Amino acid sequence: MAEKTLNIGLIGYGFMGRAHSNAYCKVNHFFDLDTQPVLKAACARKPEQLAEFASRWGWESTETDWRVLVERDDIDAIDICSPNNTHHDIVMAAADAGKMVLCEKPLAMNAEEGAEMAAAVAKAGVPNMVWFNYRRVPAVAFARQLVDEGRIGRPFHYRAKYLQDWTIDPDLPQGGATLWRLDADIAGSGVTGDLLAHSIDTAIWLNGPIESVTAVTETFIKERALQDDPGTTKPVTIDDACLFLARFANGSLATFESTRYARGRKNQNSFELNGDKGSVLFDLEDAHQLQYFDHTGEEHVNGWRTILVTDSDHPYMKNWWVPGCVLGYEHTFINALADFLAGLESGVPAQPDIASALETQKICDAVLKSAETGIWERV
Amino acid sequence: MAEKTLNIGLIGYGFMGRAHSNAYCKVNHFFDLDTQPVLKAACARKPEQLAEFASRWGWESTETDWRVLVERDDIDAIDICSPNNTHHDIVMAAADAGKMVLCEKPLAMNAEEGAEMAAAVAKAGVPNMVWFNYRRVPAVAFARQLVDEGRIGRPFHYRAKYLQDWTIDPDLPQGGATLWRLDADIAGSGVTGDLLAHSIDTAIWLNGPIESVTAVTETFIKERALQDDPGTTKPVTIDDACLFLARFANGSLATFESTRYARGRKNQNSFELNGDKGSVLFDLEDAHQLQYFDHTGEEHVNGWRTILVTDSDHPYMKNWWVPGCVLGYEHTFINALADFLAGLESGVPAQPDIASALETQKICDAVLKSAETGIWERV
Amino acid sequence: MAEKTLNIGLIGYGFMGRAHSNAYCKVNHFFDLDTQPVLKAACARKPEQLAEFASRWGWESTETDWRVLVERDDIDAIDICSPNNTHHDIVMAAADAGKMVLCEKPLAMNAEEGAEMAAAVAKAGVPNMVWFNYRRVPAVAFARQLVDEGRIGRPFHYRAKYLQDWTIDPDLPQGGATLWRLDADIAGSGVTGDLLAHSIDTAIWLNGPIESVTAVTETFIKERALQDDPGTTKPVTIDDACLFLARFANGSLATFESTRYARGRKNQNSFELNGDKGSVLFDLEDAHQLQYFDHTGEEHVNGWRTILVTDSDHPYMKNWWVPGCVLGYEHTFINALADFLAGLESGVPAQPDIASALETQKICDAVLKSAETGIWERV
Amino acid sequence: MAEKTLNIGLIGYGFMGRAHSNAYCKVNHFFDLDTQPVLKAACARKPEQLAEFASRWGWESTETDWRVLVERDDIDAIDICSPNNTHHDIVMAAADAGKMVLCEKPLAMNAEEGAEMAAAVAKAGVPNMVWFNYRRVPAVAFARQLVDEGRIGRPFHYRAKYLQDWTIDPDLPQGGATLWRLDADIAGSGVTGDLLAHSIDTAIWLNGPIESVTAVTETFIKERALQDDPGTTKPVTIDDACLFLARFANGSLATFESTRYARGRKNQNSFELNGDKGSVLFDLEDAHQLQYFDHTGEEHVNGWRTILVTDSDHPYMKNWWVPGCVLGYEHTFINALADFLAGLESGVPAQPDIASALETQKICDAVLKSAETGIWERV
Repeated sequence: MAEKTLNIGLIGYGFMGRAHSNAYCKVNHFFDLDTQPVLKAACARKPEQLAEFASRWGWESTETDWRVLVERDDIDAIDICSPNNTHHDIVMAAADAGKMVLCEKPLAMNAEEGAEMAAAVAKAGVPNMVWFNYRRVPAVAFARQLVDEGRIGRPFHYRAKYLQDWTIDPDLPQGGATLWRLDADIAGSGVTGDLLAHSIDTAIWLNGPIESVTAVTETFIKERALQDDPGTTKPVTIDDACLFLARFANGSLATFESTRYARGRKNQNSFELNGDKGSVLFDLEDAHQLQYFDHTGEEHVNGWRTILVTDSDHPYMKNWWVPGCVLGYEHTFINALADFLAGLESGVPAQPDIASALETQKICDAVLKSAETGIWERV
Repeated sequence: MAEKTLNIGLIGYGFMGRAHSNAYCKVNHFFDLDTQPVLKAACARKPEQLAEFASRWGWESTETDWRVLVERDDIDAIDICSPNNTHHDIVMAAADAGKMVLCEKPLAMNAEEGAEMAAAVAKAGVPNMVWFNYRRVPAVAFARQLVDEGRIGRPFHYRAKYLQDWTIDPDLPQGGATLWRLDADIAGSGVTGDLLAHSIDTAIWLNGPIESVTAVTETFIKERALQDDPGTTKPVTIDDACLFLARFANGSLATFESTRYARGRKNQNSFELNGDKGSVLFDLEDAHQLQYFDHTGEEHVNGWRTILVTDSDHPYMKNWWVPGCVLGYEHTFINALADFLAGLESGVPAQPDIASALETQKICDAVLKSAETGIWERV
Repeated sequence: MAEKTLNIGLIGYGFMGRAHSNAYCKVNHFFDLDTQPVLKAACARKPEQLAEFASRWGWESTETDWRVLVERDDIDAIDICSPNNTHHDIVMAAADAGKMVLCEKPLAMNAEEGAEMAAAVAKAGVPNMVWFNYRRVPAVAFARQLVDEGRIGRPFHYRAKYLQDWTIDPDLPQGGATLWRLDADIAGSGVTGDLLAHSIDTAIWLNGPIESVTAVTETFIKERALQDDPGTTKPVTIDDACLFLARFANGSLATFESTRYARGRKNQNSFELNGDKGSVLFDLEDAHQLQYFDHTGEEHVNGWRTILVTDSDHPYMKNWWVPGCVLGYEHTFINALADFLAGLESGVPAQPDIASALETQKICDAVLKSAETGIWERV
Repeated sequence: MAEKTLNIGLIGYGFMGRAHSNAYCKVNHFFDLDTQPVLKAACARKPEQLAEFASRWGWESTETDWRVLVERDDIDAIDICSPNNTHHDIVMAAADAGKMVLCEKPLAMNAEEGAEMAAAVAKAGVPNMVWFNYRRVPAVAFARQLVDEGRIGRPFHYRAKYLQDWTIDPDLPQGGATLWRLDADIAGSGVTGDLLAHSIDTAIWLNGPIESVTAVTETFIKERALQDDPGTTKPVTIDDACLFLARFANGSLATFESTRYARGRKNQNSFELNGDKGSVLFDLEDAHQLQYFDHTGEEHVNGWRTILVTDSDHPYMKNWWVPGCVLGYEHTFINALADFLAGLESGVPAQPDIASALETQKICDAVLKSAETGIWERV
């Protein structure tokens, strides 16, 4: 089994804290790796909830101050699952302390922060990764494989959507422990950082750099009560929806759209890429499939294929069950962690690292700027 | 344009009378044929409704007695759209009078009648066809093409369903002008002749002869009022549902199911054929598509293809619009008529003719017998 | 049957000429109307092809000069199926001659032309209609019905795509009899007028006026040979693709995209509308269905419904066959014609008429302008 | 956290051994239970592979003789993942030793064995469960909930398929460590016990007892080489395919089909239930969804709904992630284990227990008998 251990210090016990804890528990059951992560310490500000969380997942110790965690000698890697406005400072400190960094997305509040973070980890020479977990959906990785195999050809169009509907209710409050994503002071932006960042990361991974964008944002519900102070209502500061057009460096054109106001769409993270030789379509709500149109075969039998991405020769799948047995949401994090650990061993860092994720941050910034200026902005 | 005319005498002005009239009006607009059908005479027992029907569709004359129609010198072909219990006598008389015969399905009340009809048209040497219109759905004809191209290989399984839900309401009456399909004295049987006959015709066209069957039928609603006498209730004599297992001569196994009690299924006439090289799946509720799985390509990109059967190199489609433009229900009759007329010209009769449709009738008979005996019956 | 006749003069015998001829032949078979259109005269410049066309469809006479046709006393209505750059002059002349006008889309080469045409028919007081046939897909009309029934609620998002793939081949020539849609001098624009005009017409019918847009266009293949002069290559003048973002007057946001370079998409004219109460999704490649999400029911059984729009209580369907029997592409024209004729009788004109279609033209103009200026343009 | 521990002794380290080990590791991370399973001992005959397996999953000790395992005082529950022909003897011994029993499906080689096993655990009074894991797919459990809510009404039809394609290759050997499912001496039967048992268990859970069946089986590939002795070819003894018709006690009719020769179907475990009020359809290849048709609403908006079974008010889902985040294959085992542990605590045993699973075994026996006799067999 694994010969080495990697002591993890996790910051944040929310939704992502659970997803990452699960990944640390499971990765060595399914992947043959030299390294075994150890759930060394979990960190959060509320001691009671933290204790319950640590007990449930088997974290060996706890801390309530991330600065203490970062300084601990027995921690090899800092995993950041805390709100977006904490990412920068933690990464800077962790790099300074020589710790590896695994940071949740979006990377930072803006590209300026992101650039500092990228510089810091580069200077420190510490391995690092940003958890854009949807690259690790087998069907998404398989789409990349089809691109690499030359099956798309010259690309003409890309279209991405990330649609949800959970904030339509005007009685939903904002801010607070579970709703900080609705507060721009903490989240940096609304759907742009939370959802579109995923779409952009996937897009540039599959189709290369984006050169320019024109965008529009909207806040449909203008005021909401505060989660932590229900009697108080304040203006909503985030973008509820963000749409943009883009030009890729390869000459293809794109639409991107993200919203939390698409009734009936729970988690529709979808993209389609059209080239002269073929096309692919993915939808996270049917995450076990990739749609593929191959133009190179006999014309009369051409059609969109629904490929069940569960065979042992599909990305990641040989590590799991048997053909026809699907993975779920949580496996994207386990696959990502496996890639990170394998990258430590091979010396080829798993992607996106912070330097690479900075490109997505720059595009988000250009999108938000264009939504203000009303003109095309170069990235 | 067409050099010859073919004078049609149509019997019955119901749903099928409309569908066939439409076919006669349109066929020469879309197909290049030597023959132009002429709407010479329509025949039915109720003069007023008949007059309205004839006027709407442009039938030149009317008759209220089919025996008179059959004897008219100016009629070349008799088209039978009247209830099932009239098919035998009309075909016998028409053949005797030397008329071509186009007969709606099911061919007859039973195989004994059917055999006499086949003998009569053979003796008379008159061209004939039975309107199993679903063979003329382009996607169904395309399935046959894929079989002919060797894309299925050795067949293992066939499964057919024909599901509807329009008789679930116990207040629906039986018998009468529009509900004779619920009276076994007129219809011969229930779903077996009405729906399964379609499924069987398609099955043997695609997969060859059926050797033996074991079946079960059920009448879910035991009594219904009479459409023509609402105060009177009588036992229901038809099969509401019919399911059977079958062995094909080629060694493959099949399930067949038909019912009018499948809530939510309006007209789900569906089949799937699995062979070692490939599989096809068709569903009439998505009639413009054929699903095809090709096992012969590279494994990692294999998947079920949704082939939009609307290209000009797909069956029948070059006569219609442009790729992406679908046909509808009525076009199956027009395509069938075009095939019949082309068959007259080429000397290769369009299928199924009465002799060929008799095979389907024999299987229906074996199915109904098995439902009584509870054992496997040979066809 | 019909008491009155309406003498039609048709200009153009191409794809649309066929579709309209078919509509005139069939409309009275399926709709109960006071008016019977008569195929009085067909007009085109090439006498031989015209004669063949007229013979096939039963046009009583022919003309090779549309100005002569417009002046004929025995013509009541002029139907314009000729290329886009002829629409303006023909409409002006027809209105001047007191003829009704049925004009193919797009209305005109630009909004300036369109405004003159709208003024001319208003001044002449002649009934008129623009053939935006996709409003007459039963599922699209049904979407409108759901909006009218209040099932969508406050709209947040609209997204429309019209994707095809038939011009990807660089060897496809431009201009000429069948490829004039690739010549901006004749077509006015590329996909903007040809495809997006459909999307826009549907959008404003369902979701109200569009206030402003920002757009991008692209011409992927820069040069093509001429259809009528294969040895000569010229720059391509049309837009191969056009994407835009839009703000509706009701506050909702939209993406629109159209292209002929989306490999695997044959005729994907699709839209989705999201409101707080419900959402609808339509795709012309599955034209018999409407997807509908109803948020007002019990939460745990909410889901996207695939409504088979073939019941007798769905728009147009009671005139056709029985539940489960689908219509095809051509029926959109027949339904439109039936609406036009019924509008003559009721005095409530079928929509869109020229004045209404002008709104779509204005939006197209704003889109093309924005693609040049790079900024948001008000409509 | 959990107050009690339950010491598990696992027999078998194959595919099911992995799936169960994973469940033991994860269940307390996601479910609030009083009991924490402990991976006490793993048992198998090959010491080397066993050691690797135990190390990977954290089993505290190993045994190579299951009789020794069963007698160990520190084992509370025996989990049987070994081939079918071992189930009976292990259960008898485990019950005799007073151990709880968790047994993989199919329960036994035949109903006679099963009856003895049911009697033994009843006599011993030990909690027991059979791992029919597909009941624990949230969408399947949700189907049961809809039945319980009265949404299906009077049932008319049930149709089940379990289709795979992995044995079509005639070069695939039989018997041996990974292919014992192709040897009837070890597996008891072919697809009947392996696949149809799942379909039957689900069917009787949703739709009540089956009264009688008529069946057909087939062995398509008559001879295969031995996995453990590649040079030796022997007749294939299992059923490659099994189809049957059934009558349920509630009067509904059914088709069941199972095969490993359905090209393109990887793991299509599918069922549809039609009642007068509504219908449901499930397909394991889209396991995150349930299709539901509700007839009780307004007719014109009725349609099949695709319900994404990922909301917190859907079965099992509140324990996992957030709406829109799907589970995978392995979660069915974790959910089942959680039910078993909760049943220990509540005193209401999780189902199916051995007594209940015996009903499925009896139906399998009747099916195999009918395939021999050719007549309907009562269960």
